[in-house]
Amino acid sequence: MKNQSIPYKIYLNESQMPTAWYNLRADMKNKPAPLLNPGTMEPMTAQELSGVFCDELIRQELDNTTAYFPIPEAIRSFYKMYRPSPLVRAYCLEEKLGTPAKIYYKFEGNNTSGSHKLNSAIAQAYYAKEQGLKGVTTETGAGQWGTALSMACAYFGLDCKVYMVKVSYEQKPFRREVMRTYGASVTPSPSMETEVGRKILQEHPGTTGSLGCAISEAVEKAVSTPGYRYVLGSVLNQVLLHQSVIGLETKAALDQYGIQPDIIIGCAGGGSNLGGLIAPFMGQKLRGEADYRIIAVEPASCPSFTRGKYAYDFCDTGMVCPLAKMYTLGSGFIPAPNHAGGLRYHGMSSVLSQLYHDGLMEAVSVKQTEVFQAAEYFARVEGILPAPESAHAIKTAIDEAVKCRETGQEKTIVFGLTGTGYFDMVAYEKFHDGNMSDYIPTDEELQKSFDKLPRA
Amino acid sequence: MKNQSIPYKIYLNESQMPTAWYNLRADMKNKPAPLLNPGTMEPMTAQELSGVFCDELIRQELDNTTAYFPIPEAIRSFYKMYRPSPLVRAYCLEEKLGTPAKIYYKFEGNNTSGSHKLNSAIAQAYYAKEQGLKGVTTETGAGQWGTALSMACAYFGLDCKVYMVKVSYEQKPFRREVMRTYGASVTPSPSMETEVGRKILQEHPGTTGSLGCAISEAVEKAVSTPGYRYVLGSVLNQVLLHQSVIGLETKAALDQYGIQPDIIIGCAGGGSNLGGLIAPFMGQKLRGEADYRIIAVEPASCPSFTRGKYAYDFCDTGMVCPLAKMYTLGSGFIPAPNHAGGLRYHGMSSVLSQLYHDGLMEAVSVKQTEVFQAAEYFARVEGILPAPESAHAIKTAIDEAVKCRETGQEKTIVFGLTGTGYFDMVAYEKFHDGNMSDYIPTDEELQKSFDKLPRA
Repeated sequence: MKNQSIPYKIYLNESQMPTAWYNLRADMKNKPAPLLNPGTMEPMTAQELSGVFCDELIRQELDNTTAYFPIPEAIRSFYKMYRPSPLVRAYCLEEKLGTPAKIYYKFEGNNTSGSHKLNSAIAQAYYAKEQGLKGVTTETGAGQWGTALSMACAYFGLDCKVYMVKVSYEQKPFRREVMRTYGASVTPSPSMETEVGRKILQEHPGTTGSLGCAISEAVEKAVSTPGYRYVLGSVLNQVLLHQSVIGLETKAALDQYGIQPDIIIGCAGGGSNLGGLIAPFMGQKLRGEADYRIIAVEPASCPSFTRGKYAYDFCDTGMVCPLAKMYTLGSGFIPAPNHAGGLRYHGMSSVLSQLYHDGLMEAVSVKQTEVFQAAEYFARVEGILPAPESAHAIKTAIDEAVKCRETGQEKTIVFGLTGTGYFDMVAYEKFHDGNMSDYIPTDEELQKSFDKLPRA
Repeated sequence: MKNQSIPYKIYLNESQMPTAWYNLRADMKNKPAPLLNPGTMEPMTAQELSGVFCDELIRQELDNTTAYFPIPEAIRSFYKMYRPSPLVRAYCLEEKLGTPAKIYYKFEGNNTSGSHKLNSAIAQAYYAKEQGLKGVTTETGAGQWGTALSMACAYFGLDCKVYMVKVSYEQKPFRREVMRTYGASVTPSPSMETEVGRKILQEHPGTTGSLGCAISEAVEKAVSTPGYRYVLGSVLNQVLLHQSVIGLETKAALDQYGIQPDIIIGCAGGGSNLGGLIAPFMGQKLRGEADYRIIAVEPASCPSFTRGKYAYDFCDTGMVCPLAKMYTLGSGFIPAPNHAGGLRYHGMSSVLSQLYHDGLMEAVSVKQTEVFQAAEYFARVEGILPAPESAHAIKTAIDEAVKCRETGQEKTIVFGLTGTGYFDMVAYEKFHDGNMSDYIPTDEELQKSFDKLPRA
């Protein structure tokens, strides 16, 4: 075993936990492009957004200049129930790989939602409650966000209505039951409950659903139900703001031991985990205080960074939401049914899209089977059964560590282990049984989807 | 929120982690009764046990005098991957209950096996590996032990063969897949793979199985396969020894803040969690250094302490194992099929049985529906979805805290939260749907089972 002066797990004390979220946008020279009103093609105003989102969340969404937002006391109390999360030194993985690299991961899976999603869910539920709302609606893909929001709503006594992408609903029967334990109602999407759901079902009978489609349903439900607003678990600026708690804790833990990372790796679906993990590091990079290689990892079956267009697009399939400028596969894009787990959104956070566009970070795509190989390898070596989403980052971290073995470089790699895979055993079973395919969209398929992008 | 000088979660540093297990038997004036050879009715010798168990584990099993066993370095390294586990102050639960009681729980669910079982699994796998064995066999009920052993065997490169109680196998389809991820093979028990399994199936066609029956199969398999030994996740002295790490950490964390508990509560199936949690506290009690109320909580549907006989009995249904003196419902006892989760073993650890017999601890039984009510309440308030087993302790801890509310007493309650319920959603679903029953064995049923106890 290597130098043990750095413990296996670095836990901050409660007194070292962040008291404010960090807003990366404040340090961006090129600000992320604003949301546009699809009718006027003008930036959405707070007024226009207020039917959909909570007021305070709109303020956070639109504020590109305030660097720090204090975390309200009630949210900090809740955070203390499951945070700080450990920054783990992967001694066993390093030894097994025979790499001189030093590998750390920020493990966000030690809470009942099984992922980092709770960090933003509790914030969004808090502001909804403060505003005197009765409940919120949302969508969920892999189910982590829906579970997190259910927990947050139970804590503040809010009603919670979740539209769950149908393919996940079917692959993860027990996710529904967890949400139910927390008092939420869960509807497979597309459903007959909403106008947009009925329309999508008519046009695409037998569709397994998509996040974009579930968003449309959740937004329609919120807008048409008095006392309700819509909340979202990724993509939005506000979500990245809340998730900065991941990066802030990671940086504090590294700083405590004088560790300077070389490479920071995160999986990327809509960008909530990646944006949160990298926030303070990217801030340093933007201010010229430090340099890091930052790598986004996405599924080859849903490759918005690596094969998408940087363009204004609808955030949802039903086109009821504003337009966002982002790397996108087109709002009609739906990953092939064989695609397991989350990271299935057609677009990417506007903040991350701008940073990627400006060359401040890299992106790679990885195939499903190699992701599950990495997941199983990691589970056996490090003892944690990862969510498929998280395993994308594991795969790339292992790749980088193996490169270090070949070059002899002692790089320090930090990656985000966003969650656990307890509810993904159907996908693991497919992998074990050799029934997992690596289908990747063809250029023609993508072009067909790009053709439907709105004209800017 | 109350006095915050005690954090929500007390984590020990790695340097404060126990370096030796504590053997409670060393401080017991009345030693636990020895295992008997069913042929001779004489205490089993190390020689006789060596076909079934690993040599070092036999030494630990039979040693009633050595107070501390050093934890080998390789096991301590593995412990560092998921330990120390947090001792959580249940501030939110206290506030919700409006109780002056101070409630703490030792949370053992933050590892992939989802429970405390890993503490002994890694030790047993280590000694098997040290002895040069090829693999181990075992049984599992709720599936936590099987998962833990799979993880431990993957770590040391041992083969792992698990017999899983059929009713659990069917209620928890994904448990099998997790074990498979760790390379184990899983067989629903009773099976046609063993002589004893075939015999039980012939006598009780359609049986949903029991731990006692799965033990018989696993032992037969181990004894008949060269290079294999049998390992067990509860009941045995060696298991309680390894699990003392729970109590030692709990005590160290409490001592650090000068906290003196009044009541210590643990769920009890075979006794692994309870025996581990209470070990150092009971040690103090035995040495006259401190006094505590210690409460074992068991299911009313499998009430070995509260309704069993204190007698020599077979450890398994097939009667292939030695006899143990314990509180028992009879080795043929099988909980009604409606019984959810673990805590389904017919007997209780000989150590705990002796302590209970000597009036050093109390026992209560609780009904299934009230256990799930407590589980859901706790999940919503404290954010952790508990395993049904753990929820037995939660139920009793809440009962004691409510008593404090009524009497105004500021008691300090510590309970063991042994694991998470992610794989128990079928049971939660039954509860939500109102399909859970509270069947309790009748006196006649128990008498019928007692009538088959071996004559001492």
